Amino acid sequence: MAGARPTIADVAREAGVSRTTVSHALNGIGKVDPRTRERVERVAAELGYRPSLRAQRLRRGEARTIGLVSSMPFAVAGGPSRLGFFMEVAAAAAESALMHGFALVLVPPVEADPPLDSLDIDGAIVVEPDADDSATKRLRDRGLPIVALGRQPGTDLPHVDLHAAAVVRLLLEHLREQGGRRIALLVGSARRHSYVDAAHEYRRFAHEHGMPELVVLAEESGGTEAGYAACADLLDRHPGVDAVCATVDAFAVGAVRALTDRGLRVPDDVMVATRYDGLRARTCEPPLTAVDLHLGQAAEGAVSVLLAEMRRGPARGEAPEVPVPPPVLVPRASSLRR
Amino acid sequence: MAGARPTIADVAREAGVSRTTVSHALNGIGKVDPRTRERVERVAAELGYRPSLRAQRLRRGEARTIGLVSSMPFAVAGGPSRLGFFMEVAAAAAESALMHGFALVLVPPVEADPPLDSLDIDGAIVVEPDADDSATKRLRDRGLPIVALGRQPGTDLPHVDLHAAAVVRLLLEHLREQGGRRIALLVGSARRHSYVDAAHEYRRFAHEHGMPELVVLAEESGGTEAGYAACADLLDRHPGVDAVCATVDAFAVGAVRALTDRGLRVPDDVMVATRYDGLRARTCEPPLTAVDLHLGQAAEGAVSVLLAEMRRGPARGEAPEVPVPPPVLVPRASSLRR
Repeated sequence: MAGARPTIADVAREAGVSRTTVSHALNGIGKVDPRTRERVERVAAELGYRPSLRAQRLRRGEARTIGLVSSMPFAVAGGPSRLGFFMEVAAAAAESALMHGFALVLVPPVEADPPLDSLDIDGAIVVEPDADDSATKRLRDRGLPIVALGRQPGTDLPHVDLHAAAVVRLLLEHLREQGGRRIALLVGSARRHSYVDAAHEYRRFAHEHGMPELVVLAEESGGTEAGYAACADLLDRHPGVDAVCATVDAFAVGAVRALTDRGLRVPDDVMVATRYDGLRARTCEPPLTAVDLHLGQAAEGAVSVLLAEMRRGPARGEAPEVPVPPPVLVPRASSLRR
Repeated sequence: MAGARPTIADVAREAGVSRTTVSHALNGIGKVDPRTRERVERVAAELGYRPSLRAQRLRRGEARTIGLVSSMPFAVAGGPSRLGFFMEVAAAAAESALMHGFALVLVPPVEADPPLDSLDIDGAIVVEPDADDSATKRLRDRGLPIVALGRQPGTDLPHVDLHAAAVVRLLLEHLREQGGRRIALLVGSARRHSYVDAAHEYRRFAHEHGMPELVVLAEESGGTEAGYAACADLLDRHPGVDAVCATVDAFAVGAVRALTDRGLRVPDDVMVATRYDGLRARTCEPPLTAVDLHLGQAAEGAVSVLLAEMRRGPARGEAPEVPVPPPVLVPRASSLRR
């Protein structure tokens, strides 16, 4: 026995019962005489026996594990800018899952295709999937319950809303209040809710205020450089732009560089604002006006919704309403003229 | 069959073989006629059958999952300051584990006791465990291979070194070069390598330069407030202090506030520097001089060491040498006088 891990057979022999009785006694199943149960429990404790988690899970048909999957390209959310949106969600979701007795497996943006098919999970949260997200498709094909954090455009996947329209309106109203009259919108070219809904709300806002519609697209995978190029192109075509609302922080940082390189001052000549209030927004020079999305609460909400989906099996449509507080503006030097 | 997930029995019936033959054919075990194997594979593909990951794992005795466990109190590393050291390690470790075919389960700092015993993992990385870390103890009691990221004082647990002595020497030499002659060290009171090794190296440095030994301790769980109080106390007892080297970023931020509240200017009157170059260091006013610890590479190294430990079973002593580059100073306004 020295050093070896005690098995169910050791407990059965020591307690003078069958292995089935040990299993029933320790798992609270079947009919076991209370005195026998007590003896089995005592012997198990004395021997230091621990039932196999894996065998228990196989029997119960659950992994007690959920996945958190990024759908953003490595260039935007991986590598040197790892400490962003996804990891902020991950920290809160992992804590929330643990408190519900579930482990959280991280599937961050990776350069190669993530090995999703070999993850033993009961369900997954996908962060801001675009309309054609392949990870979401693969997980759905496995029949797993999935919740999107941020609506997936064009599908009825259960989701926790990140209020993309409200966020962009908050930014546009702030920029207008600070004197912006020709405000451009810089969004990614993927079909992601934070671009699709933002562009829709931007057009509505422009129409309401008789403002020209200046929408520029950038490739997510181009990161900061793509934001720089898109902003430079915007300035060539519309020299009168006085504010840029960029829904990706990497694009906003690129836009500030493009403006500065042309000798334009931020915010005096052109204001810049972005969506996610992370490291990039706070360490940009000047620091960027951004939005508190209450990501921690949204992540906890996504865990609750997913656990509910797992209980009732894969389903479509409206997720239970999750109370994520409305977004709050965090004004900073990049857009404060007064 | 409509909607139901096909089982191994469906494949066996359709292919006209036993379930054991299906299992052997798909898992490449036992002796199966090549034509039979081909037929089973074709039928499995047609039916969309996927073998149970959980059953496979039970058979192979592995979870294909590793844990990443924080040993820091919630007050320092959890809640509003989640995006710190631990999550930077997590992002890199998750990516590295996935590339090796393992899932990474996050066990972040949680307010309650984390349910470590119910995690189905093959091994764990514990981040900077102190000498009495209870998570490490519980995981070792389960017989799991463990690797510490940052040496665990007083044990022979395999680890990846974070060079705490070299880090503090780098900071002290910089502060001295910037004119510091009465440099204080502010460390946590736990027995963590980043305090124990730092204090040892500080004393050696003070001795070398004939500098008074000014070491103040703060409770980790007190966070920024504890740093404030410790610095205020230091200034009361040693008004001539001209630099503070704080090994916890929260303490450094508290120290800057304590100095500013007394009307002292940073860095002109008193310089401040810290260890971890995270959000706190970069967004402090003034921004804090810190150190690039190459956490990403250290985390990847910890994954490699852990996988090696898992292959050879739990062991003690020296871990394979992991090439983490030497720490690099990131000088910022909080200590730049020249």
